[in-house]
Amino acid sequence: MLYFENDYCEGAHPAILQKLTETNFEKVSGYGTDPYCASAKEKIRAACACPEADVSFISGGTQTNAIVIASLLHRWEGVLAAATGHVAGHEAGAIEFTGHKVIGLPQKNGKLDAADVEDFCKTFYADANHDHMVFPGMVYISHPSEYGTLYTKAELEALSAVCHAYHMPLFVDGARLGYALASEGTDVTLADLAKLTDVFYIGGTKVGALCGEAVVFPHGAPAHFMTMVKQQGALLAKGRLMGIQFDVLFTDDLYTRISRNAIETANALKKGLTAKGYRFFMDSPTNQIFVVLENAQLAALEGKAKFGFWEKFDDSHTVVRIATSWATRMEEVEKLIALM
Amino acid sequence: MLYFENDYCEGAHPAILQKLTETNFEKVSGYGTDPYCASAKEKIRAACACPEADVSFISGGTQTNAIVIASLLHRWEGVLAAATGHVAGHEAGAIEFTGHKVIGLPQKNGKLDAADVEDFCKTFYADANHDHMVFPGMVYISHPSEYGTLYTKAELEALSAVCHAYHMPLFVDGARLGYALASEGTDVTLADLAKLTDVFYIGGTKVGALCGEAVVFPHGAPAHFMTMVKQQGALLAKGRLMGIQFDVLFTDDLYTRISRNAIETANALKKGLTAKGYRFFMDSPTNQIFVVLENAQLAALEGKAKFGFWEKFDDSHTVVRIATSWATRMEEVEKLIALM
Amino acid sequence: MLYFENDYCEGAHPAILQKLTETNFEKVSGYGTDPYCASAKEKIRAACACPEADVSFISGGTQTNAIVIASLLHRWEGVLAAATGHVAGHEAGAIEFTGHKVIGLPQKNGKLDAADVEDFCKTFYADANHDHMVFPGMVYISHPSEYGTLYTKAELEALSAVCHAYHMPLFVDGARLGYALASEGTDVTLADLAKLTDVFYIGGTKVGALCGEAVVFPHGAPAHFMTMVKQQGALLAKGRLMGIQFDVLFTDDLYTRISRNAIETANALKKGLTAKGYRFFMDSPTNQIFVVLENAQLAALEGKAKFGFWEKFDDSHTVVRIATSWATRMEEVEKLIALM
Amino acid sequence: MLYFENDYCEGAHPAILQKLTETNFEKVSGYGTDPYCASAKEKIRAACACPEADVSFISGGTQTNAIVIASLLHRWEGVLAAATGHVAGHEAGAIEFTGHKVIGLPQKNGKLDAADVEDFCKTFYADANHDHMVFPGMVYISHPSEYGTLYTKAELEALSAVCHAYHMPLFVDGARLGYALASEGTDVTLADLAKLTDVFYIGGTKVGALCGEAVVFPHGAPAHFMTMVKQQGALLAKGRLMGIQFDVLFTDDLYTRISRNAIETANALKKGLTAKGYRFFMDSPTNQIFVVLENAQLAALEGKAKFGFWEKFDDSHTVVRIATSWATRMEEVEKLIALM
Repeated sequence: MLYFENDYCEGAHPAILQKLTETNFEKVSGYGTDPYCASAKEKIRAACACPEADVSFISGGTQTNAIVIASLLHRWEGVLAAATGHVAGHEAGAIEFTGHKVIGLPQKNGKLDAADVEDFCKTFYADANHDHMVFPGMVYISHPSEYGTLYTKAELEALSAVCHAYHMPLFVDGARLGYALASEGTDVTLADLAKLTDVFYIGGTKVGALCGEAVVFPHGAPAHFMTMVKQQGALLAKGRLMGIQFDVLFTDDLYTRISRNAIETANALKKGLTAKGYRFFMDSPTNQIFVVLENAQLAALEGKAKFGFWEKFDDSHTVVRIATSWATRMEEVEKLIALM
Repeated sequence: MLYFENDYCEGAHPAILQKLTETNFEKVSGYGTDPYCASAKEKIRAACACPEADVSFISGGTQTNAIVIASLLHRWEGVLAAATGHVAGHEAGAIEFTGHKVIGLPQKNGKLDAADVEDFCKTFYADANHDHMVFPGMVYISHPSEYGTLYTKAELEALSAVCHAYHMPLFVDGARLGYALASEGTDVTLADLAKLTDVFYIGGTKVGALCGEAVVFPHGAPAHFMTMVKQQGALLAKGRLMGIQFDVLFTDDLYTRISRNAIETANALKKGLTAKGYRFFMDSPTNQIFVVLENAQLAALEGKAKFGFWEKFDDSHTVVRIATSWATRMEEVEKLIALM
Repeated sequence: MLYFENDYCEGAHPAILQKLTETNFEKVSGYGTDPYCASAKEKIRAACACPEADVSFISGGTQTNAIVIASLLHRWEGVLAAATGHVAGHEAGAIEFTGHKVIGLPQKNGKLDAADVEDFCKTFYADANHDHMVFPGMVYISHPSEYGTLYTKAELEALSAVCHAYHMPLFVDGARLGYALASEGTDVTLADLAKLTDVFYIGGTKVGALCGEAVVFPHGAPAHFMTMVKQQGALLAKGRLMGIQFDVLFTDDLYTRISRNAIETANALKKGLTAKGYRFFMDSPTNQIFVVLENAQLAALEGKAKFGFWEKFDDSHTVVRIATSWATRMEEVEKLIALM
Repeated sequence: MLYFENDYCEGAHPAILQKLTETNFEKVSGYGTDPYCASAKEKIRAACACPEADVSFISGGTQTNAIVIASLLHRWEGVLAAATGHVAGHEAGAIEFTGHKVIGLPQKNGKLDAADVEDFCKTFYADANHDHMVFPGMVYISHPSEYGTLYTKAELEALSAVCHAYHMPLFVDGARLGYALASEGTDVTLADLAKLTDVFYIGGTKVGALCGEAVVFPHGAPAHFMTMVKQQGALLAKGRLMGIQFDVLFTDDLYTRISRNAIETANALKKGLTAKGYRFFMDSPTNQIFVVLENAQLAALEGKAKFGFWEKFDDSHTVVRIATSWATRMEEVEKLIALM
């Protein structure tokens, strides 16, 4: 079975397991106050060229989204997101569970357009009854988006500007951020994110870690952020698990280096499938490829290759997601191309 | 520095790290649907002698408490707990964040008494205005308690009976359950917990795992429990991290075996300190020892031994917590006795 | 100034004030246990031809929506509503404040279509990942809708059927229900609502009362509904205020009789404006008329007539809402036609 | 039947009903923007000698408590209250429903002591783990308390000082405030409350209104308070109902004048019962009298006099609450004394 269902099907980069083993019996203090967390934070600040950033570690993506959003919004505010954003549709109402509305805006290639955000805000404040409505309180985007697409630096600048104009923090969900940074042709760096956003996270779970996301507040975290993390149940007693993983990932730029493998294997796959005449649902420059397959063909592949089912395309076709990762081997890609 | 501050200062049992390494490149499905989770659940069901139990894995204790409690309570209900219970005082309001009141009852040796629960319920239902009040909806206890004390089987039976009489689930926080099960003289087994409670958890974080608690619902989990776990942000993409750890811990009874080490080292410590004339704040049969120290003595130990500060005893004395763990070595205990 | 801004600009029907005055010094028990509440409930049950219905009184519309929805939904569920539904846009996030998502579906003439509800549910349950999403838990519609339009009995039957098929309660917001019942040509009665829905409310605030909505659960209220009303702060100590108002409104069918006045004056207004060549934004058979005015004309009317501003139509036109009520006098309508 | 069960068993002061009737057909704007609300606010500001105060009107006490508390607390904070405070025990968890803990402190004569507040805060901030706990975020007291007792000005000053020292707003629940202000011997005025608190409310429901409480923020309301009121469902469309009632109550000091009647009748009752040898559970200077009755005597009074059942005193005695109000007639008091 060729397994391309997602980018979290393997364990961790071996360097992480090795470091966990080496440090295993060191006795360190809990709740993220250990030296490995401190070291990882320092390395992340350096990688972001943002020495004053606050960095925190949280186990998973949905948890991070819910915590960051609920810590930044006032009670009368909601979060603007593309209707296809992860927080809008695939987190079981985690944001609403904290009392806040996700305000869905139109998506373009899975992305949110600064002009749409501006239009929404203009219309909102022009409405004489807006005190009876949920205020736009922050903007959530994913980079890469849920469709593997990327914002350009210019697009991020435009979003940042409209957020600034309306006093809304800009939050970037970087569950797969490594694959964005390593993508050929992107002009967005970690330092750009630190400059243009108010908070973003560097995904570990899908980029080489067992679990964990590094939340970066370039201009400082909200007051009592740690207590809010605890209140939402996300403060790990053994913070070392987070610290060690991110310390390894940000040593010698391991994070970007392993991300490149996902891009290279994805690119090889796209090239191979294009050569075989396959049609792509959306053009994605990262590690997620969306292919339109005939249902009959999909059925024939059952038991031989495992993809992510995405959505019905039409009565006879289906969109599937093929995901590579930091751990995908080129020979698996070659086998898949041969198979299809 | 002799480090006895808590029982989560080391990493994981080496067998766990080894298994994580061995299985690292196996590709498995996400969100707890992998074979390691399945195997771990099966072994836990066997250890509990409860083949029909539902088992789930959650990263940490506060998260588990908040998820279990919020999944079981009706909107008009609160949870009864000892005023010293972890949920009552040390979770940053995680339970209230989900909309529920923690109703604090008196503690006796850190434990909740069935008679106090019964009195509360009787008084509540006798009050003609109880429809204007928070209903008692479930009972939370910790075993071991926050003071390291243990319930006897008879005490659990009494609590179970009153819970049953008032249609309240009984929930046991087993963050340190291994140390209860391994304690000399306890008459409470995993099978007893499965018989007498509606839900309990087997703590991993403090008993040999990097993170993780195994939640056991002997009579089945509430409907849509997984979606509620997701909604509270606790569904790990790489569920294998949980599955592998608990699979190892429940292979050849490793969980109990490593727990015994904490008990043996704690007992040696108590014996040594008793011989030296130390006074104990509470008599605890598990891995947490509460000692009353003169402030001057405490100051003298600074930089030589690290304890958990617990509370002021009087103007010249302080209660400190000394914790052993699955990883404490007997020679550390000997050094500490010599030092004190 | 001719005041047509809304249907809540006057006080109460004089019969209500008279009854409040007559009964003022009778001493009755509190929290809705008084004889006037009992009598009003009985009359409402009779009017609905539903002797087993549970009836409760709540002060206002947003409160009623938030209470009913939060009392019916499970934690993993959201409420389906037209994107133009009051709960979706004009309640300051009151539903999300209780932890639940409002799932916006397309509107047609301000209404929700049974086919759209069915499509949503089918797609939802067909999605293999739906356990990671907010479940459709109930359906909210307004009758009349926010655009003054009405469901036909056939449309309600279709909605009721799809709700039944997917085990979702159907909830009808009847803030202006009197104006629906009194509309010419409607084929929907109170008895139909009792048959086809799981809960609906009979609006008082906009139909002759000082405040208050009567919530009707034809098949019985959820367990502990009163405690949930209290928990959301809506249990009035002087329940008599509610009971007396609805007792008067449901004596000799006063509710429908006074509603007819709003319809008659609205119809006269529509006839007059049609004759003068005005364009309507939507065809509404109830007491709210949506007219497209040139901005210049709207400016000219300032200080002479007061309308509800609705939305921009295009750069030179605006949609205004003209509302009549139980208290609108025909001479006011004539003056407005003459003025425009 | 002599009815002394509570102070909300009658309707409204006749002057209120008269004004509601007189103004009934005036067309005014909604949601509290009408001239009667404006006038009432102005009169309240004058009565409080606090021209810069923000005043809002909310229907009932529990709702007011939940709205004020949830609008002032940060997410990581709870509210300190006497364990006997209304928010602690008799609001069905309304505060917790908004996500906040009620931290119960000891009561003395139904009151909260400044020294207990200070001790709590000192201990809290001295605890090295307080980031894992609910922060004390504000203080809630009732004046009169739930036992009819009153704070002295010196006690309020002490509470105000400790609140100021710990940056906590002081909130006074004045559901029965009129009866405090009219009590003989009190040295606390409305102007004192405006000086010493951050927010308090002037109860209408129990002091002559049909419903309604006037919330006074002497130093200004929190940002977007109106939207939060809407979000919790408490913004009445016909705000005039609130405005007119409080405008009448604060014209020619009607509020204090009618409150005096409750005090005079309560005093007569206490005098009569003392003469007959009755024992009081607590010494209350306001309109609530707590008497210890033999159970046999209580049974004998059944059907003849109606009291509020309070609590069991011992096996043969019960504490009952006898409440007078603005509407109690002296002849009723005389009859009750004769009867008992």
